[in-house]
Amino acid sequence: MELLDKLNWRYAAKAMNGEKVDQEKIDRIIEAARLAPTSSGLQPFEIFVIKNQEIKEKIRPIAWNQSVITDCSHLLVFAAWDTYTEDRINYMFDLTNEVRGFKNEGWENYRQMLLSSYPQQDAEVNFNHAAKQAYIAFSQAITAAAFEEVDATPIEGFDPEAVDAILGLREKGLRSAVLLPLGYRKTEDDWLANLVKVRKSTEDLVTVID
Amino acid sequence: MELLDKLNWRYAAKAMNGEKVDQEKIDRIIEAARLAPTSSGLQPFEIFVIKNQEIKEKIRPIAWNQSVITDCSHLLVFAAWDTYTEDRINYMFDLTNEVRGFKNEGWENYRQMLLSSYPQQDAEVNFNHAAKQAYIAFSQAITAAAFEEVDATPIEGFDPEAVDAILGLREKGLRSAVLLPLGYRKTEDDWLANLVKVRKSTEDLVTVID
Repeated sequence: MELLDKLNWRYAAKAMNGEKVDQEKIDRIIEAARLAPTSSGLQPFEIFVIKNQEIKEKIRPIAWNQSVITDCSHLLVFAAWDTYTEDRINYMFDLTNEVRGFKNEGWENYRQMLLSSYPQQDAEVNFNHAAKQAYIAFSQAITAAAFEEVDATPIEGFDPEAVDAILGLREKGLRSAVLLPLGYRKTEDDWLANLVKVRKSTEDLVTVID
Repeated sequence: MELLDKLNWRYAAKAMNGEKVDQEKIDRIIEAARLAPTSSGLQPFEIFVIKNQEIKEKIRPIAWNQSVITDCSHLLVFAAWDTYTEDRINYMFDLTNEVRGFKNEGWENYRQMLLSSYPQQDAEVNFNHAAKQAYIAFSQAITAAAFEEVDATPIEGFDPEAVDAILGLREKGLRSAVLLPLGYRKTEDDWLANLVKVRKSTEDLVTVID
């Protein structure tokens, strides 16, 4: 399967060469993230696409000084909703009704169930839930980058509060969840580039219940 | 891009027809999940592949009685580590050294950093972190299913403690994170099958920082 070839090709580049990625490639990578399925279809996150070099340089020191932060072409920041609110839930249900052109009783009952539970939950629980949805999109972006032969380095090692401050995320009701620099590998400076991909064996990962 | 066609083709089937999916297709879907990148390469989850109809029937009532649970071909359960332990961290670092055939000082220092922080963290924090890694693999399985023209229905709506009990997950140091029934859509019984896919606009989802 072509997908498996792409997933085997990709790795988390630890050095990038600063070359710019064509906008059409970036657009398709973002589109894959946009199409990701999410719980109740809420898409409880936003994506910040950082091309600005000064902003990348501000983020690098609070991300273990990883060179790919500044040497990437586009730095994606996946920022999840800090909580679920009535407005946010209603927005997606209203959008669904608008796009589909009708109201449905089952769907409206489902809306009410979410409205009567999600906003009342602890914000931290909600953020964690929203962040998981962001990870589904993040994962689709990683796969899409591989299809574009663009390198993508998943990065969790950063100070989320500092990134939130740099991008003004808290004021928008968002919290940074994960980073994805996109660019091109610089093999000669990358300790990981020529090492074998290591994964648990299928036997260790999978249990079949017949 | 072919990937975008596949992502547009897929949807969360709400009815399946019971037809079996070929094992080779299941194997490739699992392989995509196995290849998923995870934080520090720890792959902190396992995948249970349930073919047994009685087990599916036990899970259905604690998953909002969704018919796809029993009418799917294979029910995947992504179960994340309940916490990070020294043994689990050492396992993956040792495996990496074994596969690559050498020890590296930087990598060993990184191991020590994880050993001195992850196991000491609150188990709930660790489980949430592990679950996010499971979501990256879960997302790759969803995409792989689309490439196989196999329907996949992401399901968070279930009682995780009940699923843990049915599968004996807690005894294994695991907690169920998310379900993915794989099978074939039964369009005539599926209210969602012919509805337009709804997603936020790119403008609402994405902010470019030039």
